[in-house]
Amino acid sequence: MMKKVILITAVMMMCNMASAQFRRGPQAEPPPEGFKPASTNTFISQYPAVNAETRQAMFKVLAPHAQIVQVDLAGKKYDMTKDEKGFWTCISDPQVVGFHYYAIRIDSVAVMDRGTEAFFGSNWESSGIEIPEGPEGDYYRFNKEIPHGQIRSVDYWSEVNGMERPVNVYVPAEYEQRPDKKYPVLYLVHGWGEDENGWSVQGHMANIMDGLIAAGRAVPMIVVMPSGDIKTNADVREASGNITDIYIKDLVPFIDKTFRTVTDREHRAMAGLSRGGFQTCLTVLNNMDKFAWMGTFSGFFMRSNEGIENAFNGAFKDADSFNKQMNLLFISTGTEERNPRESVEALKKHGIKNIIFHESQGTAHEWLTWRRALNDFAPRLFQ
Amino acid sequence: MMKKVILITAVMMMCNMASAQFRRGPQAEPPPEGFKPASTNTFISQYPAVNAETRQAMFKVLAPHAQIVQVDLAGKKYDMTKDEKGFWTCISDPQVVGFHYYAIRIDSVAVMDRGTEAFFGSNWESSGIEIPEGPEGDYYRFNKEIPHGQIRSVDYWSEVNGMERPVNVYVPAEYEQRPDKKYPVLYLVHGWGEDENGWSVQGHMANIMDGLIAAGRAVPMIVVMPSGDIKTNADVREASGNITDIYIKDLVPFIDKTFRTVTDREHRAMAGLSRGGFQTCLTVLNNMDKFAWMGTFSGFFMRSNEGIENAFNGAFKDADSFNKQMNLLFISTGTEERNPRESVEALKKHGIKNIIFHESQGTAHEWLTWRRALNDFAPRLFQ
Repeated sequence: MMKKVILITAVMMMCNMASAQFRRGPQAEPPPEGFKPASTNTFISQYPAVNAETRQAMFKVLAPHAQIVQVDLAGKKYDMTKDEKGFWTCISDPQVVGFHYYAIRIDSVAVMDRGTEAFFGSNWESSGIEIPEGPEGDYYRFNKEIPHGQIRSVDYWSEVNGMERPVNVYVPAEYEQRPDKKYPVLYLVHGWGEDENGWSVQGHMANIMDGLIAAGRAVPMIVVMPSGDIKTNADVREASGNITDIYIKDLVPFIDKTFRTVTDREHRAMAGLSRGGFQTCLTVLNNMDKFAWMGTFSGFFMRSNEGIENAFNGAFKDADSFNKQMNLLFISTGTEERNPRESVEALKKHGIKNIIFHESQGTAHEWLTWRRALNDFAPRLFQ
Repeated sequence: MMKKVILITAVMMMCNMASAQFRRGPQAEPPPEGFKPASTNTFISQYPAVNAETRQAMFKVLAPHAQIVQVDLAGKKYDMTKDEKGFWTCISDPQVVGFHYYAIRIDSVAVMDRGTEAFFGSNWESSGIEIPEGPEGDYYRFNKEIPHGQIRSVDYWSEVNGMERPVNVYVPAEYEQRPDKKYPVLYLVHGWGEDENGWSVQGHMANIMDGLIAAGRAVPMIVVMPSGDIKTNADVREASGNITDIYIKDLVPFIDKTFRTVTDREHRAMAGLSRGGFQTCLTVLNNMDKFAWMGTFSGFFMRSNEGIENAFNGAFKDADSFNKQMNLLFISTGTEERNPRESVEALKKHGIKNIIFHESQGTAHEWLTWRRALNDFAPRLFQ
């Protein structure tokens, strides 16, 4: 009697309840020979698909009632063509290895391709695609043979900002096993329109750091990845410099209180990409009592109306003084983007030492440039 | 002479380089009186906006060339109306407090509203909106007056799955300060089509646990939030039961090796929502030597062709034996969704004890139901 009391066809019903409004229509055909789903796809998505040999990406979008559908990738718009089921398709030119943001344009509205995970860039959640290549990726892929650090997501309270702010903190694999050891800290900032997840998700920084540390090439260190933007506070956001206040007054004390850090300037570094590189200059060069190492990846700029002597409140003016304080000024770029080589040469002529200039061959303002930069930069720190 | 060598108008250029392809068109007017940008928006988005008093949401989308634009929210499609600039607008019915997934439909294609952050649900990245209300939210909002735990993102290697798998691990605030202490563990699983971030992002579980622990209501514990789905491995994904193998053979040993856990069954619990609640039943009821506490939130189902005695391989058949092993069988639901009350009564009549049945008033298959469930469930564990 009791046996039939409980009646539900179980799992499928739960699926339907949750998903009815987002149900997909007809399923697309599997990708053609040579193309595989990108590693950046959500786990049930066949598209976009990548041809590892040609480094081309194939896109497919179901939009039976749309008039024009395009893919907007790496500065080029590709017109898609529609089949009888309502799927739109195109194949891209060969892409640089690494990660690229892209958008689908449906009747001129740029939206996410719902086949990929979301990657925060340009101030909104974007589609992304990872273009694989054999040996290049070894240093940024997950390696199951070595110990792994952890990325810790925490909120800290910012008095400057008047609200909690998110930060991701990488701790090296040995951190848990050595409760008495203190570690140096690298502050590592994302680019314009990205957030605190940029380095850990798009940049694969944990894989890079795990590999460098396991190989004995980099000192075990804590890497702090804050949000370089200022949520919901438009007044403060306008003044890019104020992010420095948040870092110096709120974030650094929080990190030193919460993690086992060495707190002197010799054990604190900062680096960033693009706008984060510029924020690094603003922050470090105005607080050299707190940092002894710095890196600016595709982000070294001086204001056009200043010379070396006046740039960054005169930080470079007295070259000897700068040289005594700064153990490393790492400046990097991709060869296919604006190149700060002249600035670097000018700084050297001015007497600034300890400069490392790193060029990523064949890459532009994109994540492969920055993965390579981090891989070259991190081993130079704290030793 | 040297002074003018270095010339770039700095930050704006970097912005343009990164964002040109995703540049937005005309900006929308600020929300009307009574409406404020939702807390789930990206930090520069004015829309969607929420009226806290009426609990209505206002949406706005720029799509000058689209024919039909709709909002698909909580099972209802709202037609939007277009203004002369090409912005489409609508205002929703009053919504339940808490988090809701939604989609924008542009000429019948369901896409993300690019004004919000992305929330993984229904197997893709969705828009989401948080509806605020005063006292209700106290337990799941960030409280700057209390200590905060950390959420750690790590990958572990799964032999069962043949690849690395992501897992988020919450450790309580005191974990860092007490390196000799070991902690009990709650495994906490998301719902169908969500991922390992569901509980920490949509569920605000860290705020809930921080509050319960700070108030002395819950024992400090580690909370492990795995991905309950199986990426890129369609064969395995089909068989929902196989997730149990991943948990038991790969995940639990990894957690016990990597974190300071108490490893006996009395200090290990599992719970989940919707499909995760069903996975909890499959996992715990077939491995009672490993778990002594369990919770199933909107996810308690028995197959229709089984009775109590046969359900879950006969786990309930011998009520005395079950009662001796299981300290807590927590079953919860929202009052506005399918209610397992009859099943609970049947289990009680069959002699199953230590059942707690929790009903969330006025909520359906949605996150407020599950935030409330966790808040009621966690204090009952390990004491």
